Amino acid sequence: MKRLEPVLKADDIPTLADMLVAHERIRPHIHRTPVLTSRTINEAARAELFFKCENFQKAGAFKARGASNAVFGLSDEEAARGVATHSSGNHGLCLAYAAGRRGIPCTVVMPRTAPQAKKDAVRAYGGRVVECEPSTSSREAVFAEVVAETGAEFVHPYNDARVIAGQATCSKELIEQVAGLDAVIAPIGGGGMVSGTCLTLSNLAPDIEIYAAEPEQADDAARSLREGKIIAYDAPQTIADGLKVPLKELTWHFVSRHVKDILTVSEDEIVAAMRLIWARMKIVMEPSSAVTLAAILKNPEIFAGKRVGVIITGGNVDLGKLPWS
Amino acid sequence: MKRLEPVLKADDIPTLADMLVAHERIRPHIHRTPVLTSRTINEAARAELFFKCENFQKAGAFKARGASNAVFGLSDEEAARGVATHSSGNHGLCLAYAAGRRGIPCTVVMPRTAPQAKKDAVRAYGGRVVECEPSTSSREAVFAEVVAETGAEFVHPYNDARVIAGQATCSKELIEQVAGLDAVIAPIGGGGMVSGTCLTLSNLAPDIEIYAAEPEQADDAARSLREGKIIAYDAPQTIADGLKVPLKELTWHFVSRHVKDILTVSEDEIVAAMRLIWARMKIVMEPSSAVTLAAILKNPEIFAGKRVGVIITGGNVDLGKLPWS
Repeated sequence: MKRLEPVLKADDIPTLADMLVAHERIRPHIHRTPVLTSRTINEAARAELFFKCENFQKAGAFKARGASNAVFGLSDEEAARGVATHSSGNHGLCLAYAAGRRGIPCTVVMPRTAPQAKKDAVRAYGGRVVECEPSTSSREAVFAEVVAETGAEFVHPYNDARVIAGQATCSKELIEQVAGLDAVIAPIGGGGMVSGTCLTLSNLAPDIEIYAAEPEQADDAARSLREGKIIAYDAPQTIADGLKVPLKELTWHFVSRHVKDILTVSEDEIVAAMRLIWARMKIVMEPSSAVTLAAILKNPEIFAGKRVGVIITGGNVDLGKLPWS
Repeated sequence: MKRLEPVLKADDIPTLADMLVAHERIRPHIHRTPVLTSRTINEAARAELFFKCENFQKAGAFKARGASNAVFGLSDEEAARGVATHSSGNHGLCLAYAAGRRGIPCTVVMPRTAPQAKKDAVRAYGGRVVECEPSTSSREAVFAEVVAETGAEFVHPYNDARVIAGQATCSKELIEQVAGLDAVIAPIGGGGMVSGTCLTLSNLAPDIEIYAAEPEQADDAARSLREGKIIAYDAPQTIADGLKVPLKELTWHFVSRHVKDILTVSEDEIVAAMRLIWARMKIVMEPSSAVTLAAILKNPEIFAGKRVGVIITGGNVDLGKLPWS
């Protein structure tokens, strides 16, 4: 297949051009997701909120953007060897989705303790699951074996220029869909979505303030921003399970330069915001996606009276184990 | 306010013109709800399904259409005396919504045993809740008192021409949004939505087959169609709590003339279809809305290979009491 130029390497700093190329490249493989609003939630927040619904994205999460950009940016020769990653969350699922669309192999290394449903979902997209022990050393050893055996291209869940350029397409759509935003807020874990948001907005709409939100119980990004260097926690516990991972070099590059503040919220505030969104907007979304509304409701001095874009990052939730039941 | 003509009486047979006027009348007060699709669900059904998402409708249900048409069709003099109904479901909520938009009184008679959340929701829209005992005789006595005291206009949940003309606007939007449908299927309780569907499609798209679906445990409409007369059950039990009520004269008029078949499904099939929609489409919808997909999956000999419109009727579900948890 024809490869669009320019081609990014994993450890480049992605540019506006890379994001624009990414959007053309992934367009056939992703949804242009809708933006929803709720009068009731606006009244509660005393702001105008515009929810960019990546829970409706292919494979149920925004990570289909970055994964598709990485997969469809490979040369035919690279692609033939397949892709690999380690992830027990949406990135593994979305990489399997994208690889399936291109018809190439995908291996996802997951702890044997990961939920069966996640393993099944990777396999349903045609991916291969290789189990490791639930420790960093085992994961690294098993992953090295997979790469040695297959020659597969490693696609990191967020510390990868191709992935960041892909995630950046989300904010491009958002500012095309909603005029006159004052601020955008997204959840922050490893910082892939937030970095993409920074990449797009700092170039195309530099007046829009960029906020991130994270759980108090996994506030490594907020502490990193405050202390001016990456701080990583060992094993934070939070219901927002997509937000436990630390920043890395590439995402720190964007977050440290462009994020105005990182706001933290309690577990109870996350669950309450999640339930409010389900009840009033009638959409299924993940706990990780609820930290943003929780942060808006908690900080009216920042958001009241403003037009705010809110990224709903994903909808892959265990319906049999909801946090309020 | 200016009243659009023609004006329907509650016991008229509504016409195409009534539906068209209804659509103009209610346009400022309702959403033109989106149509969603799911590749996974299409594969499971071996059909192309187009879900008309009235769970995203104002007040969370299609009944905002009929209620708005009734409320905004009143003369100023009639409106000043307010509206009243008996309902422990979406119609009470939606009538309160519409009355609130017009700024007129609304009284909803509900059994004292109805869920507190439903009573609170009516009040949140500015409606008044009057409690009765959970029996037909008490409800009728209390309701007669309310009308005698207020002079309010009775708006029946479905056996009312104004309500049917309002519900009929849903199928008008659907055929504008999706070309070339072979069939449309909607859940059937009292038959308001199905009658509206018949009214619109029999006039504007008579080649589209109309199906209805209902729970096996409340199969009064299916039996009515088979036996050629209205059959009513006393107190059927089903998780699809919007579908327990019987057909009445006006809805029987439409259902008996235009519905090709009424398909029934088990409680387990309803819950499985509901969970499939939540998991794959990432939307919150009611058990009553899942009978249609359950019927499609159960009857491939009818639906396979066809383009089918599927009405998702509402999204007001008790998130704390989901049927699979």
